[in-house]
Amino acid sequence: MITLEHCMNLDLNDPLRALRDQFVIPEGLVYLDGNSLGMLPKTTSTRLQKVIEFEWGQGLIGSWNSAGWYTMPGQIAERLAPILGALPQEVMVADSTSLNLYKVLAMAMQQMRRPNSSKRVVLTEADNFPTDLYMMQSLCQQWDFEWKAVPTADLGKHLNANVAILMLSHVNYRTGHMHDMQVWNERAHNFGARTLWDLAHSAGAVPLQLNASNSDYAVGCGYKYLNGGPGAPAYVWVHSRWHSQLSQPLSGWFGHIRPFEFDGQYQPAADMRAFLCGTPPILSMVALACGIETVRSSDALGGMTAIREKSLQLSQLFMELVQQRLQPWGLECVTPLATENRGSHVSLTAPEGSYAMIQALITHGVVGDYRAGRSNEPHLLRFGFTPLTLRYIDVWEAVDRFEHVLKNDVWRDPRFSQTQAVT
Amino acid sequence: MITLEHCMNLDLNDPLRALRDQFVIPEGLVYLDGNSLGMLPKTTSTRLQKVIEFEWGQGLIGSWNSAGWYTMPGQIAERLAPILGALPQEVMVADSTSLNLYKVLAMAMQQMRRPNSSKRVVLTEADNFPTDLYMMQSLCQQWDFEWKAVPTADLGKHLNANVAILMLSHVNYRTGHMHDMQVWNERAHNFGARTLWDLAHSAGAVPLQLNASNSDYAVGCGYKYLNGGPGAPAYVWVHSRWHSQLSQPLSGWFGHIRPFEFDGQYQPAADMRAFLCGTPPILSMVALACGIETVRSSDALGGMTAIREKSLQLSQLFMELVQQRLQPWGLECVTPLATENRGSHVSLTAPEGSYAMIQALITHGVVGDYRAGRSNEPHLLRFGFTPLTLRYIDVWEAVDRFEHVLKNDVWRDPRFSQTQAVT
Repeated sequence: MITLEHCMNLDLNDPLRALRDQFVIPEGLVYLDGNSLGMLPKTTSTRLQKVIEFEWGQGLIGSWNSAGWYTMPGQIAERLAPILGALPQEVMVADSTSLNLYKVLAMAMQQMRRPNSSKRVVLTEADNFPTDLYMMQSLCQQWDFEWKAVPTADLGKHLNANVAILMLSHVNYRTGHMHDMQVWNERAHNFGARTLWDLAHSAGAVPLQLNASNSDYAVGCGYKYLNGGPGAPAYVWVHSRWHSQLSQPLSGWFGHIRPFEFDGQYQPAADMRAFLCGTPPILSMVALACGIETVRSSDALGGMTAIREKSLQLSQLFMELVQQRLQPWGLECVTPLATENRGSHVSLTAPEGSYAMIQALITHGVVGDYRAGRSNEPHLLRFGFTPLTLRYIDVWEAVDRFEHVLKNDVWRDPRFSQTQAVT
Repeated sequence: MITLEHCMNLDLNDPLRALRDQFVIPEGLVYLDGNSLGMLPKTTSTRLQKVIEFEWGQGLIGSWNSAGWYTMPGQIAERLAPILGALPQEVMVADSTSLNLYKVLAMAMQQMRRPNSSKRVVLTEADNFPTDLYMMQSLCQQWDFEWKAVPTADLGKHLNANVAILMLSHVNYRTGHMHDMQVWNERAHNFGARTLWDLAHSAGAVPLQLNASNSDYAVGCGYKYLNGGPGAPAYVWVHSRWHSQLSQPLSGWFGHIRPFEFDGQYQPAADMRAFLCGTPPILSMVALACGIETVRSSDALGGMTAIREKSLQLSQLFMELVQQRLQPWGLECVTPLATENRGSHVSLTAPEGSYAMIQALITHGVVGDYRAGRSNEPHLLRFGFTPLTLRYIDVWEAVDRFEHVLKNDVWRDPRFSQTQAVT
């Protein structure tokens, strides 16, 4: 049986334990939703205040040059690149994940398009994140591509010579299932297809090797494990080998090769700036920069390898405690147990009342989230494990409070099933 | 001859003079670039600090509901609507101007598209803002429309039955020339075309009547006269009569009719939320909300009518002082003199050294900007007049310092022509 003392010992021996001090952490809160919105870095508020009061307030329009606003997207991208296993010049920070996916999928289609070719299928998983599916649907309709959204188990069966693009989320937002990036890249390339990875639930939590794994394109968001704040700007990555044809349909002026010549004809930048579109939201960019630094601060302590190790230990501890203490109420883990097959969150099912349980847990200071199932999918209780902010005793505490909520039928209080939260 | 005393008297009698106190204004600065980046409202920094420290830091993911983040784009849109002469439910705040233009132009094309019809021209001005031209070019190429970018004087000649969409900037970013919205709407409608207005240099500076003038679509930005901060989110407007077919190709999950059901098939919201795409950047949204309130604070003092009156008086005063004191050096005004034909900025030409003059002026505490001419266009010295932050004595001061810069050949110092600023 796992004891609290065991968890306290794990914390004492945690090489990353000092990193928690980078964050504002509400007293007594066990926050297992850093995979939805990362916690607030202590630097963000003061840094933004400085940007607002000095750069905007005093520097005004001149700050586009003097304060480096103009080059900020590229500079943040450079700091992010190692977290993705990418070269600095292959990454750009811009807009939202949805928009970056639209840009890069459109570009991939354009690069793969051949007249009269039947190679025009975009293959993906049916339970990919909805925005990925929606953007794919929109582009396929417009550009006469076909999409196939199939169960994960059937992906291999549908990967054939007609597939132009294999579009996958590296870590599934519901189940936490993680794909082997290298394996799928190889399979796709064997059929002459290219891969597009959504890293929303990976970057900052699991080590990524976009280049070494031979991926083609990727996108991801800044507000989860990168701690960039609500609706933080997102990023896009394109392997250098495709940089000779960088152009995408959202051809805004910041993506122009020389934006401030105000040329009447669009000509995309010859580098990743081609993925910029309108004027970047500087305030949100600054917060993202602060968030990325919280992850980069692990560099000297083992970096993403150490983060991954702690992430797996945290989630492993959680799964064991759930097994040990919550099984009487039928709580079951749907996340793969094998470490190579899971990311940094764990999803559970309950025989009934998943939504009410999450609500009851929140009132007991344990924040996870509820993900309703579509059609045949089960409703999920989802818990994210963010190695930078969580201690092992937090995991203990979470399961302890969960047991209390179950043992005392707290969750059956009607108030917990009444209102439907939006996120 | 206009005197400083005259300017001081104008300030004393200015009904809007108290509104300047809403802003952080650097000591001694005459800022004539509020049409590029509006000044910092005093509320922004504290409001953002509160959102960061309490809503994000303490409320975390729950703030999407409890702090109203989820409904923020719509609520800001409601506060903005009267400034545009629009109904609250016709406006949405989202992304950038470029992206909103893409969405709404694509929707307009979709709504206007008829099989085998020759009505597929998008007509615009050659000197429209580049991003408008770029987005138009991208969409026309993709969707088999034709674009015509013609000189302003030739617009009427090219407006015919083949025109599907007439896309204009209400106030030209270079010259400050302002179109009569109602007249062009009527002309376009007579040919069965629809109108799309870019309000970047209008909203917050000139009264707008999107509904009363019978416009069809509009977009605009939040960081100019709306004081929303660098790269602030933008807005999009669609006349209610076209709301039965709201859908656009950037089909991200926030535009879905029920985003948190995580449905696998995109179905656009039946209202202006259909223009949302990815997760909105909350921090930048909050700053925009503060900016819009600085304009709304004029409501009790005459609102946009009073703002327009002061704007015209400020620019008129500037033009008269230029004529009176800068003519010996060949400075000439290219902005139309007639009040009904100009917005809220004034552009000048100089026989030589426009760029150096702007740089020299900046070191003398007068901030305007330089806009290089393309092909046959003249290089411009551009000065924006923002009624909320400027006094009449600022205009006096600007011309006084300009005369000093010219009289003493300050601008001929080589350092002023060496570096090319990006904005």
